[in-house]
Amino acid sequence: MQIRFNLPGKVYLTGAGPGSAKLLTLRALELLRHADLVLHDDLVSDDVLSQIPPHVAVQNVGKRCGSKKITQEEILRRMIAGARAGQILVRLKGGDPLIFARTKDEIAALRQAGIDFEIVPGITAATAAAATAQIPLTDRNNAGRLVFVSNHRCAARGKSSWDRNFTADATLVFYMPGEDFGTLASELMEAGVGEETACLLVSQATRPGQKAIRTTLSGLPFAPPLEAPSLLIVGAVASQARADLTAFPNDASEPLVQAGLQEMTLDLIAPDEINAD
Amino acid sequence: MQIRFNLPGKVYLTGAGPGSAKLLTLRALELLRHADLVLHDDLVSDDVLSQIPPHVAVQNVGKRCGSKKITQEEILRRMIAGARAGQILVRLKGGDPLIFARTKDEIAALRQAGIDFEIVPGITAATAAAATAQIPLTDRNNAGRLVFVSNHRCAARGKSSWDRNFTADATLVFYMPGEDFGTLASELMEAGVGEETACLLVSQATRPGQKAIRTTLSGLPFAPPLEAPSLLIVGAVASQARADLTAFPNDASEPLVQAGLQEMTLDLIAPDEINAD
Repeated sequence: MQIRFNLPGKVYLTGAGPGSAKLLTLRALELLRHADLVLHDDLVSDDVLSQIPPHVAVQNVGKRCGSKKITQEEILRRMIAGARAGQILVRLKGGDPLIFARTKDEIAALRQAGIDFEIVPGITAATAAAATAQIPLTDRNNAGRLVFVSNHRCAARGKSSWDRNFTADATLVFYMPGEDFGTLASELMEAGVGEETACLLVSQATRPGQKAIRTTLSGLPFAPPLEAPSLLIVGAVASQARADLTAFPNDASEPLVQAGLQEMTLDLIAPDEINAD
Repeated sequence: MQIRFNLPGKVYLTGAGPGSAKLLTLRALELLRHADLVLHDDLVSDDVLSQIPPHVAVQNVGKRCGSKKITQEEILRRMIAGARAGQILVRLKGGDPLIFARTKDEIAALRQAGIDFEIVPGITAATAAAATAQIPLTDRNNAGRLVFVSNHRCAARGKSSWDRNFTADATLVFYMPGEDFGTLASELMEAGVGEETACLLVSQATRPGQKAIRTTLSGLPFAPPLEAPSLLIVGAVASQARADLTAFPNDASEPLVQAGLQEMTLDLIAPDEINAD
């Protein structure tokens, strides 16, 4: 006779990283493999989702500008109900769950409901894009500060508060830079950023469709819109982007055999072992 | 008869993450397991180093303030020589290799020498610290910007260029905040940061000895110095840090059995399979 303990559930607010499953953390992978339920955002890649075994329930709770499939209240309700029912529940978000991921409300709701939770950081888009372009994000000589800004096209833009003090000696990274590069370039120039300052637009970093465009602030308004997720890096470091950016091979998903290496295999624990009493 | 091709070597500028091996990326782990040589910094954790199999050569090329064991030139020389000899060479750095990791010179040297290289991003200290304290780093209401600054005690501090414009609506993260919290607090107050602004000091995030102190800007000068690697977060988000910070359990290394889960096992490919012709 087996006695089944009713263990309390737990919620894991987990970063899925930029796209390539190779950039998942070990912690994220083990959670995805042992979860009862995964609630994921729209921008989580197919490569990452393919790591979830078939027995795990998966729900896309993604919200897009102007077309919310599921309200934030409903996401919170599902998280709390799942944990109370004893589930191992992974709330999976693109990139890092603490950077422009609206995780504040979820933390507050879980605390209020008394649900145990853990936050698992992920590789954020800025470092993935910079890694692909092979540029540092900081530099002792001309990039002592690294500034992440969200410029989501849905958000009502507040008054611009850029100034020389803010932009000097900094690398600026715009998450979700939208399509109005003309306005953004004008604001930055008014704030004293030189028109020859290097800019790097990266779309779908580490994913099969990744693209990058290297330009300058004066050329930015003429850059084409890029597919989400995309990112804009402005600053001296961007001038060091690899010369072959048009080809832009997907290094992170390059098979290891090409480097004289073999793929690592991972043992998957059988589902019936997971909830062993 | 086996024919052995003399494959060209490659250098992997790789992020080791904050400390817990659970926060390595899958890419970093597979590289560590298949490397010929790992050159690592001082701040890479024992937990991460323990993931490297015994047959891999490991060298600590760490530099510390005032006591350089090995010059940067010597590190570059070893990287280039190793790659030219056909080695799979992992240059392992704490956190992310593109954020305050002085990777610019290494990228330039590898390009100049015509050595193939890949950059593997890692979990940066800021998100690891925030994950442990369970706070978001951005917030639509009062933290639209996330600013990373290095405040290394070895560096000659330049003139302070903080101002209200810079610090409003931002989360400020100081990497390597040093020990002179009094000067830093004064500068921030002069720049208009309120003395009641929340501050969070985190030392050794995700490592067994991790500690955190929650205070305010006016209390910061009285905070004790913390063991490296440490980090200071200043901004409204820090006020949401979990209430039990003094206990500060190490979630990232918490055994999965405690959550009703089991450890994942990883197959290690035998060394003699790696360089199969």
